[in-house]
Amino acid sequence: MYYPLPMQRLIKELSKLPSIGEKSATRLAYHLIANDQGLARTMSAALSDAVEKTRFCERCFFFSEAELCQICSNPAREEGLLCVVEKPMDLISIERVGEYKGRYHVLHGLWAPLRGQGPEEMKLKELIGRLEAGGITEVILATSSTVEGDATALYIARILSEMGVQSSRPAQGMPKGGEFEYLDDVTLSRAFAGRNFIS
Amino acid sequence: MYYPLPMQRLIKELSKLPSIGEKSATRLAYHLIANDQGLARTMSAALSDAVEKTRFCERCFFFSEAELCQICSNPAREEGLLCVVEKPMDLISIERVGEYKGRYHVLHGLWAPLRGQGPEEMKLKELIGRLEAGGITEVILATSSTVEGDATALYIARILSEMGVQSSRPAQGMPKGGEFEYLDDVTLSRAFAGRNFIS
Repeated sequence: MYYPLPMQRLIKELSKLPSIGEKSATRLAYHLIANDQGLARTMSAALSDAVEKTRFCERCFFFSEAELCQICSNPAREEGLLCVVEKPMDLISIERVGEYKGRYHVLHGLWAPLRGQGPEEMKLKELIGRLEAGGITEVILATSSTVEGDATALYIARILSEMGVQSSRPAQGMPKGGEFEYLDDVTLSRAFAGRNFIS
Repeated sequence: MYYPLPMQRLIKELSKLPSIGEKSATRLAYHLIANDQGLARTMSAALSDAVEKTRFCERCFFFSEAELCQICSNPAREEGLLCVVEKPMDLISIERVGEYKGRYHVLHGLWAPLRGQGPEEMKLKELIGRLEAGGITEVILATSSTVEGDATALYIARILSEMGVQSSRPAQGMPKGGEFEYLDDVTLSRAFAGRNFIS
């Protein structure tokens, strides 16, 4: 004796989502069927609509409805400055601050040999293609400050250096509000190494 | 500069699900659009299909595809024994053990005055109707062993007693594998009060 078949199928589909196990999937299905059939219907439509209409920008691989995304097609953004990020959510975080005025390149992955992810699984070939086309003078390698993020940045920086393109990494140090007592060793060491002299 | 509109709509719908915030919803939408468009399509279909075809059993309010669920329409189940549970998942847990042979009644809620949930929000009227129709001789009040679960069971037990129907609560005590050192006070006290003499 289990749930009716259509509900079992929904639970199975929901539990394929990352970080959603069978128990959470069952709770979600119960909520949708018992309490919020309206949400189930609009979500079903939103799902197929989003998949149908959202694609990657052909230049930077951020999400887009058209061939080029809103940033790539905006003539006010600096052509010569490129910021490389791991995933679309990182781009959104940088845009939220509103200070960066260049363009982007979304890798959709990192070089993570321990997880079996080689460089060919990121949009790196496409990045090199953009640089070969010319016009870009500086690349900010804004991957996360993790082992894999650092390794990826270093790997790309070497390729760029051979191509004669200048690359940089965002500064590392104490986060705003960071207390010395709770700072990890690596952050503390980097904050000291990169100290700014007060003139 | 944000995500394309169809993706924004998907994020908004996903974040309406219980225990899914905007960050998780964005990550889920990214996964569906970037990595698993097949899953997005089958999930969209499963959602509308489940909502279309799943309803509540007209007698016990468990999920069903037909008027009566598989348990209510199974003549092998004992007619006179009724087990009252809060939600469909509780029924599934009891069925998994496979020892209970009676029928069920799903309340779809508890009496929780602190959360503003009165008795009229559970399927209580319908339970009373089933008992008035006759034929049921014992009711097991299998709501959770929480404050709200206990209160609901007590509330229903009083009504049943006035109707002359015998009701019971599952035994309370040490869970299998429970260690005294880590037992909470209430469980320990109930385990002592309900001790079984070894003859």
